[in-house]
Amino acid sequence: MSRTIWIDEEGEVRTIDQTALPFERRELVLRTLEDCDRAIRDMQVRGAPLIGAVGAWGLALALRDDASDASLKSAFERLAASRPTAVNLRWALERVRARVAAQAPARREALARDEAGRICDEDVACNARIGERGAELLRALAQRRAARSGGDGTGPAPLNLLTHCNAGRIATVDHGTALAPVYRLHAEGVPVHVWVDETRPRNQGAALTAWELAERGVAHTVIADNAGGLLMMQGRVDAVIVGCDRVAANGDVANKVGTYLKALAARDNGVPFYVACPVSTIDSGTPEGASIPIEERAAREVTHVDGVLGDGSRASVRIVPEASPVANPAFDITPARLVSALLTERGVFEASVAGVRAALGAQ
Amino acid sequence: MSRTIWIDEEGEVRTIDQTALPFERRELVLRTLEDCDRAIRDMQVRGAPLIGAVGAWGLALALRDDASDASLKSAFERLAASRPTAVNLRWALERVRARVAAQAPARREALARDEAGRICDEDVACNARIGERGAELLRALAQRRAARSGGDGTGPAPLNLLTHCNAGRIATVDHGTALAPVYRLHAEGVPVHVWVDETRPRNQGAALTAWELAERGVAHTVIADNAGGLLMMQGRVDAVIVGCDRVAANGDVANKVGTYLKALAARDNGVPFYVACPVSTIDSGTPEGASIPIEERAAREVTHVDGVLGDGSRASVRIVPEASPVANPAFDITPARLVSALLTERGVFEASVAGVRAALGAQ
Repeated sequence: MSRTIWIDEEGEVRTIDQTALPFERRELVLRTLEDCDRAIRDMQVRGAPLIGAVGAWGLALALRDDASDASLKSAFERLAASRPTAVNLRWALERVRARVAAQAPARREALARDEAGRICDEDVACNARIGERGAELLRALAQRRAARSGGDGTGPAPLNLLTHCNAGRIATVDHGTALAPVYRLHAEGVPVHVWVDETRPRNQGAALTAWELAERGVAHTVIADNAGGLLMMQGRVDAVIVGCDRVAANGDVANKVGTYLKALAARDNGVPFYVACPVSTIDSGTPEGASIPIEERAAREVTHVDGVLGDGSRASVRIVPEASPVANPAFDITPARLVSALLTERGVFEASVAGVRAALGAQ
Repeated sequence: MSRTIWIDEEGEVRTIDQTALPFERRELVLRTLEDCDRAIRDMQVRGAPLIGAVGAWGLALALRDDASDASLKSAFERLAASRPTAVNLRWALERVRARVAAQAPARREALARDEAGRICDEDVACNARIGERGAELLRALAQRRAARSGGDGTGPAPLNLLTHCNAGRIATVDHGTALAPVYRLHAEGVPVHVWVDETRPRNQGAALTAWELAERGVAHTVIADNAGGLLMMQGRVDAVIVGCDRVAANGDVANKVGTYLKALAARDNGVPFYVACPVSTIDSGTPEGASIPIEERAAREVTHVDGVLGDGSRASVRIVPEASPVANPAFDITPARLVSALLTERGVFEASVAGVRAALGAQ
């Protein structure tokens, strides 16, 4: 199982340019602070955990070029501003800064590289644990479902999950958050099928989640974001599972725009709604969802759609008339009351002040 | 104000090919049953009222070629099957059939043309009345909003409406259903701004609603379907107003897939959710939403997006990997409990058994 960020044979940091997926697998070499900053801003890398990892490496690369206090400060600030909503980025940057700040400049690069490496290793281990914890929950759902559908000789119906955006392997260093339990169940031979929200406007579901599920042989079906409510009403979704960019102290969750609508539909239809989140996405300094800044992204993400033409060449088509203005908030807030549970590497917690406190205090 | 279906100087039936909008205004001549059937199936015309009008003209054109009982029967069946969810189509076809069935074949074409013409005229008048009735409701909202925001010298804030899909002028013969009150308020000088849901997978909002609002100079902003929940949570939507394809006897509403999600968000945020529906969209033979057939459309609508390239030429790009299956339900059901009111040409009614009965019984 390969990681999404790694050191190549020449000692350079490499990642996958996710803007080229699903139609091309293109690697990016990250040599400088600027490379990392651009990769995050242009969403060549995305997903809160992976952004954190690239941010940490960005700081290490900045210190390779200039290990002074001024360089540390300006690199930190630049990277911290590259995406405003996810909290892992700042968390990862703070970890690296704390490791090096009191050290002599000559030692800083090596220590920063070590810390960035640790952040990556820990992310892999963390997500593997989210996979275990989440699989326990979902296995119980799958068994109830199999018991209901059993006895007709056709074998158990698959467990039908719905996910929004991409909180899979390529949103993290490995395993994914929301998809970690899916991969785990799939590896155990539990029949799983994933409804994949397209996730407009950037289509991370259609492009990235579909791609990585297909790569691993997990059954899935791509749907327009609009379709999930109907599917839940028709009883065709057993659980919704999503990642998240930030959890507030009261359990409110910021995640890709549209998540809130799926949480409402899940609640209206008695479908469990799980949020997979490393404890590092909990921001106890943010009291509630309304305090989380919502990134407004470029209009072009809405007015144009990227894909491939019939001959396989990449192209971008305009779908909105030029006379029409556009708004493009990238995230929304799902109130804690709509979240059935937070799935973390430390266990399953209630989305509430008490649950968040317990997650932060647990080991 | 021009109609979307009209008789040209040569006496031929003309309409606008909506698959070419918003980037090109291309007229279609409907000369035969086949032309009408294809226009409906390929969604060159869409919107429940306009589909009904084209269906009625399709029957008249079939009778021009062959006015026999067998021709009437086969044309009726073919057109009735062209789109399964909207009820206006069958209603319009039944009106034309009832007008001609007992008549001698030689008289049938003229009578059918007359009936199709009446259906169109009545649609225009009906929508104008929906505009009046809806404007009354919305004017009250706008006044409350202006009172709240008044006194700072910047003038009243606009009334912010959100709509899904296209229930505008070009979904009908004229005026639209959901947009009829918007045009009416705009004409009266009430500041109105419309949040336009893109409406994946066919993008009727981004392509058609944006186009017709821009054409009339109504302020609007195109958003991804995913964004509406956040906007409502932020207090940036005063009311949601949508059209519908069928209203069941209990007030449940079938409309473009994704409508249900907006209704849930409206309820969760105390935003009124209005459904504009000519009484002809009420199907008292359908007891509840769950009995309404949901059309499953081609996978290509999800896997590919149509638009224009930088040079203005039309193109279609694939956005979903070829290995990934797709599902594409075209409609969903909004339960009556989430609908604040049904706006009809006969007045404003509760979405309930009693309200639907009152709408059908009213004059």
